[in-house]
Amino acid sequence: MLEASTTSNAPPSPDAVLPPLDADQLHALRDVGSAWGQSSNGGSSSLPIDPSLGRQPELNQPTRGSRLVHVKPASGSPDELEATVDDGGVALDPQTVGHRIRRAVLGPPLKSTAIVQERMRKLIALPVLSADALSSVAYGPEAMLAVLVLAGGPGLGWSLPISGAIAFLMLAVGMSYRQTIRAYPHGGGSYIVAGTNLGRVPGLMAAAGLITDYVLTVAVSISSGLAALTSAVPSLHSAVVPIGLALIALLLAANLRGVRQAGAVFAAPTYAFIFAIALLVIVGLIDAGRRGFHPLPAPVLHASQGVGLLLVLRAFASGSTAMTGIEAISNAVPAFKPVEWRNARTSLTWMVGLLITMFVGIIALVHLDGVVPESGQTVLSQLAHLDFGAGPLYDFTQAATALVLLLAADTAYNDFPRVMFLLARDRFAPTPFLRMGDRLAFNNGIVVLSIVAALVFAAFNGNTGSLIPLYAVGVFLAFTLSQAGMVVHWRRLRGPRWRASILVNGVGCAMSAIVFLIACITKFTAGAWVSLLIVAAFTSVALLTRHHFDGVADAIALDAPAAREGEKEEAPAEVSNLVIVPVAHLDRVTVRALAYAASLRQPVLALHVSPTEEESQRFHQYWAAWGNHVPLEVIQSPYRAVIPPIVAYIESAHAQRSDLTLTVIVPDLAVRHWWQRPLHEDTAVRLRHALAPLSKVVVSSVPLHV
Amino acid sequence: MLEASTTSNAPPSPDAVLPPLDADQLHALRDVGSAWGQSSNGGSSSLPIDPSLGRQPELNQPTRGSRLVHVKPASGSPDELEATVDDGGVALDPQTVGHRIRRAVLGPPLKSTAIVQERMRKLIALPVLSADALSSVAYGPEAMLAVLVLAGGPGLGWSLPISGAIAFLMLAVGMSYRQTIRAYPHGGGSYIVAGTNLGRVPGLMAAAGLITDYVLTVAVSISSGLAALTSAVPSLHSAVVPIGLALIALLLAANLRGVRQAGAVFAAPTYAFIFAIALLVIVGLIDAGRRGFHPLPAPVLHASQGVGLLLVLRAFASGSTAMTGIEAISNAVPAFKPVEWRNARTSLTWMVGLLITMFVGIIALVHLDGVVPESGQTVLSQLAHLDFGAGPLYDFTQAATALVLLLAADTAYNDFPRVMFLLARDRFAPTPFLRMGDRLAFNNGIVVLSIVAALVFAAFNGNTGSLIPLYAVGVFLAFTLSQAGMVVHWRRLRGPRWRASILVNGVGCAMSAIVFLIACITKFTAGAWVSLLIVAAFTSVALLTRHHFDGVADAIALDAPAAREGEKEEAPAEVSNLVIVPVAHLDRVTVRALAYAASLRQPVLALHVSPTEEESQRFHQYWAAWGNHVPLEVIQSPYRAVIPPIVAYIESAHAQRSDLTLTVIVPDLAVRHWWQRPLHEDTAVRLRHALAPLSKVVVSSVPLHV
Repeated sequence: MLEASTTSNAPPSPDAVLPPLDADQLHALRDVGSAWGQSSNGGSSSLPIDPSLGRQPELNQPTRGSRLVHVKPASGSPDELEATVDDGGVALDPQTVGHRIRRAVLGPPLKSTAIVQERMRKLIALPVLSADALSSVAYGPEAMLAVLVLAGGPGLGWSLPISGAIAFLMLAVGMSYRQTIRAYPHGGGSYIVAGTNLGRVPGLMAAAGLITDYVLTVAVSISSGLAALTSAVPSLHSAVVPIGLALIALLLAANLRGVRQAGAVFAAPTYAFIFAIALLVIVGLIDAGRRGFHPLPAPVLHASQGVGLLLVLRAFASGSTAMTGIEAISNAVPAFKPVEWRNARTSLTWMVGLLITMFVGIIALVHLDGVVPESGQTVLSQLAHLDFGAGPLYDFTQAATALVLLLAADTAYNDFPRVMFLLARDRFAPTPFLRMGDRLAFNNGIVVLSIVAALVFAAFNGNTGSLIPLYAVGVFLAFTLSQAGMVVHWRRLRGPRWRASILVNGVGCAMSAIVFLIACITKFTAGAWVSLLIVAAFTSVALLTRHHFDGVADAIALDAPAAREGEKEEAPAEVSNLVIVPVAHLDRVTVRALAYAASLRQPVLALHVSPTEEESQRFHQYWAAWGNHVPLEVIQSPYRAVIPPIVAYIESAHAQRSDLTLTVIVPDLAVRHWWQRPLHEDTAVRLRHALAPLSKVVVSSVPLHV
Repeated sequence: MLEASTTSNAPPSPDAVLPPLDADQLHALRDVGSAWGQSSNGGSSSLPIDPSLGRQPELNQPTRGSRLVHVKPASGSPDELEATVDDGGVALDPQTVGHRIRRAVLGPPLKSTAIVQERMRKLIALPVLSADALSSVAYGPEAMLAVLVLAGGPGLGWSLPISGAIAFLMLAVGMSYRQTIRAYPHGGGSYIVAGTNLGRVPGLMAAAGLITDYVLTVAVSISSGLAALTSAVPSLHSAVVPIGLALIALLLAANLRGVRQAGAVFAAPTYAFIFAIALLVIVGLIDAGRRGFHPLPAPVLHASQGVGLLLVLRAFASGSTAMTGIEAISNAVPAFKPVEWRNARTSLTWMVGLLITMFVGIIALVHLDGVVPESGQTVLSQLAHLDFGAGPLYDFTQAATALVLLLAADTAYNDFPRVMFLLARDRFAPTPFLRMGDRLAFNNGIVVLSIVAALVFAAFNGNTGSLIPLYAVGVFLAFTLSQAGMVVHWRRLRGPRWRASILVNGVGCAMSAIVFLIACITKFTAGAWVSLLIVAAFTSVALLTRHHFDGVADAIALDAPAAREGEKEEAPAEVSNLVIVPVAHLDRVTVRALAYAASLRQPVLALHVSPTEEESQRFHQYWAAWGNHVPLEVIQSPYRAVIPPIVAYIESAHAQRSDLTLTVIVPDLAVRHWWQRPLHEDTAVRLRHALAPLSKVVVSSVPLHV
């Protein structure tokens, strides 16, 4: 079972940053504090500055940080400080130019309080949330026909019965998700439903399915959208990969800026697409009616194989990709106006109805018009040509198809970072996925999705047909686990009509499982094995990550036994310090570091590594000339190594007195520009790196800026 | 003028690491020391450990450093420590396996005292030092013929007169270098001769010429050696680039290991090559004598252009690459047995004699046998086939050619790092080129040469013909500047027979300059412009580097005025400290850092950045539960940024009290393995990076190892 916190995917709470302490932990905190006794000074009276920076606003210079931030007393409570963002008006220096470009692309930072749960009317929510599902009819039917055409005319004859089966599948899965909406009114993603009801591993497998699903939604939607475009403008065909990568970059920038899903502008492409497909089907049916619904003869086809069970099942699995995205509404219930679950259910019903109608309509028209898949032109484009000729209605159909597919790719940019956030919150994924950018977007998730999707898109040369075999596996794995979770949910709750609910979700689960198995078996060699491997690898890595985080949490908890000898928390009075200053020369850099070290009023030892006896004597002599203010130890290093002798010395010193905390103060020359760094020996960085594994060693850099 | 130190290229002295101080600097050092007064404690009696680690040898564990290093009392003087290297016998742990592999490839470390000036007998020195020059006849004549053949039969007719001119050039340049040997018995590289006599910019231009020369020596020698190989084994032709890169990797490893140039094994390929070419020419001449020295008819050639001045000059410039490497002996005079300069001169005379004989012999044979360059087989291979058929003598010729070219590439691995060392010593190149590896090799120079040569080799697909146009420019630029430097040298010295010396070097200089100009003009578009651009860029970058180092030296010298306000050296009593601890949570990591901070007995302030008012209150509450031992300041950050508010706060604090030294103590979670790092927020690294540009800010990491 997952933590209770995962039963809600409400917007990220500050708990993720500072988890509340329970009674035990608070007790441990008080214990630790009391060990400090009265020796330390809790008042701020001894501080050399006014910590509130109070009445000195003119001193707040813009920082060199990544953003122009001012720290000022908070407007509401003047005894607290607030970090504010400068709104321009600063003189243009080179750094500011960079900031301005970033600001222009990404927009000004947004406060956390700007997170509002945007509520959508059904008329807006329906098109926004169903773009992913409805746009799937642009490639689903074609993927099915591309399999059947291998068996020639007899193969294509199977398109109607297979479509019937898929329509029934849509209905069953759609009804299943109607129930999820009622049961998880705060949003019931597959990861949450499967994780809460089935346990950790099924939850992670569902998450893995979703992750592959979202990556492929981006890759497939863009490749399919570009196929719609190149059907109309064939000359663009050779530029598909660069255009697709540019579109992914556009989605990246738009989502880093924090595009909101709501608004009429996002509803338009979906309505346009629905309208275009409806018109296409109606005009096509009227034409067919004029000739008494006699199918036009299909072109004579060379059948490379006979009609067999495997072929039919493969076509079924390919065609099932027409229902990817059907779960979107159940994830986003809180986005509806009240009563949320009721409005969401109504919208889902409408969406499934539209999906089945469009899917069946397209297949029927393909059958009546004798269209077969061909390279260079999509099936939808062929149908539109037959119905509308080459006029503006054709162009409109292709444009609407391309736009709704771009919108579908965009929805993955909302879903992927949210799943990664949930995984990171449950400590199955790296912590950086928790971090919100200053535009309130989960930047790391957005960047990772863009990179992976771009790699997949480029690796498959933007070819929809090659991507489809990878697609169905992840989607139907997530469906299956989610519906299985619902079955457990109803069984546990035993609310009113629980048996009927189990029946609905059970049917949905069984049918999804069948499709999943069919996809695995029939497309194993064509790419499904990659998806299965990714699911297995993702689940394992997530479990290992959680194991690591659990170990860390145990180690750093105040009430946990100290994990490592000698690294237990100590009161300040118990800390014995020895300061070691590695000195190479006697210049201003070194003397400053030595003065700083001496100013800490702890025992100080200087350490010099000398390649030769001659240089060693010379250094001793200079040290005496300087005044011998700090004890000096010289290590002869006939092998010329500098870092290893220092590390060895510090390890040996620790072996002598394991209770000592050793502070290594590294004199560091800080150059002004990054490109000046490689001109100098990087001793400070190498020393810090070499000392990092040693416990009770603190490394300090005292920079001299030149 | 360069520094006096550049007039010798003796082995690197420790001065490079710790330059001796002059009287002014020693005075400044005493001044700085006296300002510390008697306040600080110079005795070691107060230290918590025995700094000599004296009588605890059993505590000397092997370190985690890059080498297994022990620090022990030096065997000679027990009051000094010595870093020794473990010679195996340590149990095999995973780190040791890595060390053992490295040790197996690179060999055990060598002490600095292992630098011995190896002295070579003439019979060894001649083949070792002339491999570069003599091997040039493997590609020089072919490069010339490849130009002439563009003009068909009439073009090839020019091969004899052009060869005569090149032979005269060899003689003139060889005589010039005989004089350099006498004048610079410690080794007179072009950089030193030109820099000492002509000034800084000509010296750097000569160095730039040498640098391009060495890179191209590697690329051209390997491509030409592989051409000899693929002439004998055509099936390897498609694998030229990977084989070449593997050979560069082999040279890299061998030179990191510190291959010595001396020894019979390095003399063998050169003698074998000389023998093979001599046999080839003699057998060929006997054959030709049998038919009365009548040239065999050349195949009918399609002339793509007529014989013109430009073509002849281009052929001359290409053919001149047959003398690249002729300067090697003059660089390496100290490697000869005494009397060094006399033995070196004798060897140079022999080498020039051999070079001219082999070059003229090959051209004569080409003329008599009617051979023309063809792709897939080198001219030498064609001649060997004609003379020796396909038997073992042919194989021997090709093998000797390939081996001597590999040896020539190896000589660049001795020369390039030495020039980079000299440049770094004069502060024209980054300091890391000064560092000797534990095998006494200049690892950084060797690695840089390998990378650049591999890139050039791969970019030109291992094609000798395309590399040649870049080659001549750098070589003859260095020749010209070196000989011009000699002219100035004699003029300044006015020793016995100085007018004659000027004449010899003047002729060498003039002829080199003519070849340089011809190469620039006739091959400008074919690649010479790249060489010129590189020379210009290299010279500019070297001057900028020197400018940077001069600025740094001024800034860090003890007797220089403080460069930056507030960064002057201070006595410890003048340093006012404030310790700031950024705290995110209250766990063991943070509490340890706070305890360490408090143990320094300086004013401490904790800083917390909170995204919301709610979390801020919670943190205050936990802080109180802990006991309020350290004053706490909370910054509200509604934009969720963490680093910029901390940086802004520290800048503001500095604005309040610019005399304060602020120590930022960063609590840091140290994970065990590098791959665990990306799982966590890298706040410590990002904070260190953001604080780096601030002056008087010391950043400390207090790690907790989990």
